[in-house]
Amino acid sequence: MKMRISKIGERKVIEEFSEIFSSREWVEIGIGDDAAVLRAQDGKVVVTSDICTESSHFPRGMSPEQKGFFSITVNASDLAAMGARPIAFLLSISAPRETELEELLGIARGAERACVEYGAPLVGGDTKEGKELVLAGFGIGIVKRPLTLSGAKPGDGVYLSGSLGRVGLGIISLLRGLGIKKYEEAALNPRARVDLGTRLQGVATSATDVTDGLALELWKISSKSGVRIEIEEVPMEEEYIEECIKHGIDPLELALHYGGDLELVFTSRDEEEISSISEELGVEITKIGSVFNGRGVFLNGKEIEPRGYEHFSEKNK
Amino acid sequence: MKMRISKIGERKVIEEFSEIFSSREWVEIGIGDDAAVLRAQDGKVVVTSDICTESSHFPRGMSPEQKGFFSITVNASDLAAMGARPIAFLLSISAPRETELEELLGIARGAERACVEYGAPLVGGDTKEGKELVLAGFGIGIVKRPLTLSGAKPGDGVYLSGSLGRVGLGIISLLRGLGIKKYEEAALNPRARVDLGTRLQGVATSATDVTDGLALELWKISSKSGVRIEIEEVPMEEEYIEECIKHGIDPLELALHYGGDLELVFTSRDEEEISSISEELGVEITKIGSVFNGRGVFLNGKEIEPRGYEHFSEKNK
Repeated sequence: MKMRISKIGERKVIEEFSEIFSSREWVEIGIGDDAAVLRAQDGKVVVTSDICTESSHFPRGMSPEQKGFFSITVNASDLAAMGARPIAFLLSISAPRETELEELLGIARGAERACVEYGAPLVGGDTKEGKELVLAGFGIGIVKRPLTLSGAKPGDGVYLSGSLGRVGLGIISLLRGLGIKKYEEAALNPRARVDLGTRLQGVATSATDVTDGLALELWKISSKSGVRIEIEEVPMEEEYIEECIKHGIDPLELALHYGGDLELVFTSRDEEEISSISEELGVEITKIGSVFNGRGVFLNGKEIEPRGYEHFSEKNK
Repeated sequence: MKMRISKIGERKVIEEFSEIFSSREWVEIGIGDDAAVLRAQDGKVVVTSDICTESSHFPRGMSPEQKGFFSITVNASDLAAMGARPIAFLLSISAPRETELEELLGIARGAERACVEYGAPLVGGDTKEGKELVLAGFGIGIVKRPLTLSGAKPGDGVYLSGSLGRVGLGIISLLRGLGIKKYEEAALNPRARVDLGTRLQGVATSATDVTDGLALELWKISSKSGVRIEIEEVPMEEEYIEECIKHGIDPLELALHYGGDLELVFTSRDEEEISSISEELGVEITKIGSVFNGRGVFLNGKEIEPRGYEHFSEKNK
């Protein structure tokens, strides 16, 4: 039965919501009180927030389930980039009053699927009427040794999980109707590298997730750590390169500057440990370059522009 | 100089933002990395989130500073209602691309003012383009003995800080142009009872903040605690009652069902301790009723409807 949320009101929506979400043993008070209470084991508390809006952030063609999954995933990815293990998520939603209840429940089911995948429950949030769908996610994690942007040292290697450009090509395919299903799938269902991030504590000297494109992420590490980064390789799938060329897209440009892949880029001196982590988790990790004294980010000797996707900016239109 | 955010982009906005916010000694990593890292002292971590949208949540006539202050305050109030001491806030913002930078900086300054007032820094957030202004706040606190909705026991007294209806009358005055400055001021600058909430740990048996109206908040305590609540008094200022009557508004209806006052309503058996807390903090606290076996919420023997302000619902239009 189709039912608009304006017919049933906020409290009923929240009631329906709370049946979808599961809990965890460290949640002392979950959904339904003024706030949630967590028993945080020893360690430092890591907190992050990402906001996704209908008009600018969800790739065209995303289902409500995928939007819910995505809104948790981007927060999980920020926690992973700090080396933190997620312990809870919150999701605050603004939606137009004519929204169907089924759409909101789809978002909730997608969010729950992500929470289960990343091992931390949804413990709260808020719903309000607004002009468009907005999903504001919050992630809380625990870490012993946080992986910051500022710890890279000359002599470290630079590593990347997976390969780049997949999400960017998928979004372009969805926008232009190119029908490149494999990468559309990657764009609609991005995954956060939570296990890898957690495992990199004490191994990586710096880390971040590739949300704004590899170029910009490396610039962040370079400027925050005060080092020069030289890259010799940008991991891209062969099929990705072929599809790009077929459709007149520059594969390297997309891989360097588009972002959204949620892969982890990090620095470390311990090449052996990295390859055993790669094997242990079944995650492809490539050594893409090295860290030196100096400043700037270079690909095969040529400086890369610190340019990525930027919200508000007129260049994106 | 006026400057639209579309001219300058997200990163510049965040840069300008980060100059506005101060930090605290327990923040190990603040704004500028993938997530913030907090050294949480012993205790349980309390988390909450409230989302405010331009189209439904900010009283007409609110300045950017007041919106920023408000978006942090509603989260501080949820923490206070749990008895938690705030340790950090995050604020995620969606805004149209034609928004002036000065408006966003106003929001940031207001948020910072609230953070200072509640003793916890802003440590992160996100900005994205959207159709309207949306402020999604997130509060993190620490508590030893959380004050839930479910701890009220027969024999407890029911207490309320301050008085009710002030914010509701202020919002109506702003909407209808009645010019009742004192209450407009209360509506534009609501305050969270953080010191009181923290102080009530171990003293109150249940607590909540009056966001949805006293009637509904008492119903939450009644149903979650499995008790009957009898109220003999609804604290209202004399001036408030006079202004209501002058403008044809039912003062009791507004006080019971409108909400937004952010006062704390709580139950306790320790009347003496409550009055010494009242004196110590300089906060007026009134014993408004008592807790009994049974169910329901009654005012002078008559059951009060569990009715308050509800989002999405058609009744509000």
